[in-house]
Amino acid sequence: MPIYRLTLEYDGTDFEGWQVQARGHRTVQGALEHALARVVGQRVVVTGAGRTDAGVHAQGQVASIALEGAVEAAALSHSLNAVLPPDLAVVALARAADGFHARRDARGKLYRYSLWTGSAPSPLRARRSHRVHPPLDPAAMRRAAFDLVGSHDFASFQTSGSPTTTSARTLRRLDIEGQPGDEVHLWFEGDGFLRHMVRNIAGTLLEVSRGKRDPASMPALLGARDRSLAGPTAPARGLTLVQVFY
Amino acid sequence: MPIYRLTLEYDGTDFEGWQVQARGHRTVQGALEHALARVVGQRVVVTGAGRTDAGVHAQGQVASIALEGAVEAAALSHSLNAVLPPDLAVVALARAADGFHARRDARGKLYRYSLWTGSAPSPLRARRSHRVHPPLDPAAMRRAAFDLVGSHDFASFQTSGSPTTTSARTLRRLDIEGQPGDEVHLWFEGDGFLRHMVRNIAGTLLEVSRGKRDPASMPALLGARDRSLAGPTAPARGLTLVQVFY
Repeated sequence: MPIYRLTLEYDGTDFEGWQVQARGHRTVQGALEHALARVVGQRVVVTGAGRTDAGVHAQGQVASIALEGAVEAAALSHSLNAVLPPDLAVVALARAADGFHARRDARGKLYRYSLWTGSAPSPLRARRSHRVHPPLDPAAMRRAAFDLVGSHDFASFQTSGSPTTTSARTLRRLDIEGQPGDEVHLWFEGDGFLRHMVRNIAGTLLEVSRGKRDPASMPALLGARDRSLAGPTAPARGLTLVQVFY
Repeated sequence: MPIYRLTLEYDGTDFEGWQVQARGHRTVQGALEHALARVVGQRVVVTGAGRTDAGVHAQGQVASIALEGAVEAAALSHSLNAVLPPDLAVVALARAADGFHARRDARGKLYRYSLWTGSAPSPLRARRSHRVHPPLDPAAMRRAAFDLVGSHDFASFQTSGSPTTTSARTLRRLDIEGQPGDEVHLWFEGDGFLRHMVRNIAGTLLEVSRGKRDPASMPALLGARDRSLAGPTAPARGLTLVQVFY
């Protein structure tokens, strides 16, 4: 069966995450499969590169589908967008190589965690950023981030109950960009991410910013492999899956 | 009574406009007056610089209130934000000169009308921009905009039934910024705006972009003083009140 690769953008605010759940739960995968059933008249299972949690957004989520016959990609994309809800869209769709699998073939992902650090709340940014009361200390956050980049066992940043076999991952990049008082973005690029790993690191770096945690304490925290020693899980609204690498 | 000046930011999507209506309608003015009653324990009437329509956003709406006694501005701002809903916030609050009136004293306003001109829908921009199918012709729009800047009778761009005494206004600036295929912003600055004037001009410029209307036809359209000859009212979601000048 021909395989197609979809690139998806969604505002995760009103979705209960990626993965199909019981009836009555609004999920990204469920909305896509519903649209595909209407448009191509087949029961199609959508495989996502990553199972984003409730409230997490995507600019460049990737999914794969197998169809019973070949279709014209531009026409299918247009038809899907005509029936999808306004908070979910197909931004690219193309025939993929035989055997392409959005999750297994992914070689890396880029996430952005967005902070609003102004002195007052910002309603126009509230759906897509986490408000942090000033002052923010990006220098301390960068010092801590420096020790997290590289290949480590990230068990301390993995929400318990994760079904993965290993918690070793390579964090290729953890950059902190923007000015205190305005939007500040944390960019995470890596070969793969454990459950809540980005949000758990963001919550820990915010403790560093507030002086609650030593910026030089990350190596010991990684070495402890104990989730209870890291910071809280930062809210989903600040997180966006920006790109998946193949 | 001491007068205070409030600067407000709101996501207009879920408000039925600025002005208080009958019970059961969610408005910006109503939400503010409700918050003020809770925080200062007085029935306070809020006067806005402009009565934004349902769905229109604001980054820098200004309002004035009279209180029975002087208050500490920073504390009042903080208390209001603690009880306001997430889509409305006070971003600045200060004591104003005696007699200050947010609407009567306003000398001008800056609005932004935002277009999304990508080839696919963009859910992350959908609440705050109007999607226009490509191609966009900014050069033709700029040619038409050139003839709209200045002091004119804008009756052709005024939604009928407006209660104003004169439809003469000065449009100081109408700039079109951004790249086709991405976000394109129309910036309108003027001494005052008639009802739906920005959205009616935006709808007319989009007809120019699509080749449905001659870019050189604006002087004749202004001269006709006939709303039925101009283009449709562009959707509220693309409009943001950016700043009020005093």
